[in-house]
Amino acid sequence: MYTLYIANKNYSSWSLRPWVLMQEAGIPFEERLLPFGDEAAWAPFRALTPAGKVPALVDEGRVIWDSLAIVEYLAERHPGVWPRDAEARAFARSAAAEMHAGFTVLRSFCSMNVGIRVRLRETPPALLRDVGRISALWTEGLTRFGGPYLAGDTFTAVDAFFAPVVFRVQTYGLALGDAAAAYTTRMLDRPSMRLWYTQGLAETLRDESHDAECRTVGEWTADLRAI
Amino acid sequence: MYTLYIANKNYSSWSLRPWVLMQEAGIPFEERLLPFGDEAAWAPFRALTPAGKVPALVDEGRVIWDSLAIVEYLAERHPGVWPRDAEARAFARSAAAEMHAGFTVLRSFCSMNVGIRVRLRETPPALLRDVGRISALWTEGLTRFGGPYLAGDTFTAVDAFFAPVVFRVQTYGLALGDAAAAYTTRMLDRPSMRLWYTQGLAETLRDESHDAECRTVGEWTADLRAI
Ligand SMILES: N[C@@H](CCC(=O)N[C@@H](CS)C(=O)NCC(=O)O)C(=O)O
Ligand SMILES: N[C@@H](CCC(=O)N[C@@H](CS)C(=O)NCC(=O)O)C(=O)O
Repeated sequence: MYTLYIANKNYSSWSLRPWVLMQEAGIPFEERLLPFGDEAAWAPFRALTPAGKVPALVDEGRVIWDSLAIVEYLAERHPGVWPRDAEARAFARSAAAEMHAGFTVLRSFCSMNVGIRVRLRETPPALLRDVGRISALWTEGLTRFGGPYLAGDTFTAVDAFFAPVVFRVQTYGLALGDAAAAYTTRMLDRPSMRLWYTQGLAETLRDESHDAECRTVGEWTADLRAI
Repeated sequence: MYTLYIANKNYSSWSLRPWVLMQEAGIPFEERLLPFGDEAAWAPFRALTPAGKVPALVDEGRVIWDSLAIVEYLAERHPGVWPRDAEARAFARSAAAEMHAGFTVLRSFCSMNVGIRVRLRETPPALLRDVGRISALWTEGLTRFGGPYLAGDTFTAVDAFFAPVVFRVQTYGLALGDAAAAYTTRMLDRPSMRLWYTQGLAETLRDESHDAECRTVGEWTADLRAI
């Protein structure tokens, strides 16, 4: 049985990736949620994995400590993690790795916070560039491989890698092209994504530093989280 | 025949990864070097790959546009890209993906510039944390898998992923623990790394923005590049 360490569903974008992938691929796992700021929970975790970051997957004592490495680890053991078609797989891996290494402005400016809605005070050119690239990339995948997912007719790891962006689009009302906007709606409707979202809303532990980041960039128009 | 698009060997850290891996694994490829700032060279490249970044690998018209995706693409087709042992492979993939997504302070503060030597004006705590993590991670791999490479007795993709850090250690004189320092020396002695280094020194095209970054952080104590 796999154990997947994650942090708050409301905030932890990187945790969402393997979580939603494993849900979609029907890979059973036990979830351990470490709330941000809860030192008693994080200290033993840091002893387990010196990188000290979630997500981490534990499989029979073996620790895999990065979301993309977890995906490749699962792909060796379970079908359907990456697209079966070599062309689609090359696209999916390129897009996921581009996400892993890039989009730093989108990531820092619009940090994930699934339960709130924010009206941005400004949209700097660098943010617009990141959002434009997301829109173009999603549209390319949907067009080349026929949809409804980014690399064809099944949910694969590339969809999991962009799942946090889907929530950011909803939180910050980011403007995308038609095909990319429709993909966002489709993703938000997935049972796996709805489950994460519902559980995120139900969390009552707040992380002040994450919330403060979201206050810096804009005005909160809604807070749907449990009180 | 593969075509690998890269940028200046003196500066382009991400280009070095697949290049050194393919050299070490004996995978033949044709190299296309796009000098930074040479718009006539970059414009057609951006049409080929909308992400517009090097490295990119072209295989029979198929474009793989990120260094980690290139590694996985090659791993499907050639032996020896990742360690054969599952335990070592899980470590190697985790470490490479951690590098791909992280170490932002090291990357921006000590940008790759293989031909110069810099005495840093200051070493901010965040930089020391990144360097400390590198040292610990390398030492863990060397210890767990017996060396002389990070995941065992052969050069694999995880070594390729940290190859740019090896040059940064040399350029900025970064202090590492003994095992990690010895690994740096070993890597700098590899024929593949020496070839990249020599060709980097021989380049006469300068990229002012990269050089300026290196002037901001410290004093140049040597410039070994061709005039
Ligand atoms: N390379 C990592 C990055 C993960 C990451 O930055 N995780 C954050 C939470 S979303 C974290 O664990 N932060 C805790 C800390 O830095 O102490 C991955 O993709 O798995
Ligand atoms: N995700 C990429 C990032 C590559 C990257 O940032 N490359 C830089 C050069 S080292 C680049 O091509 N810059 C050109 C530009 O941004 O126009 C990878 O690892 O392949």
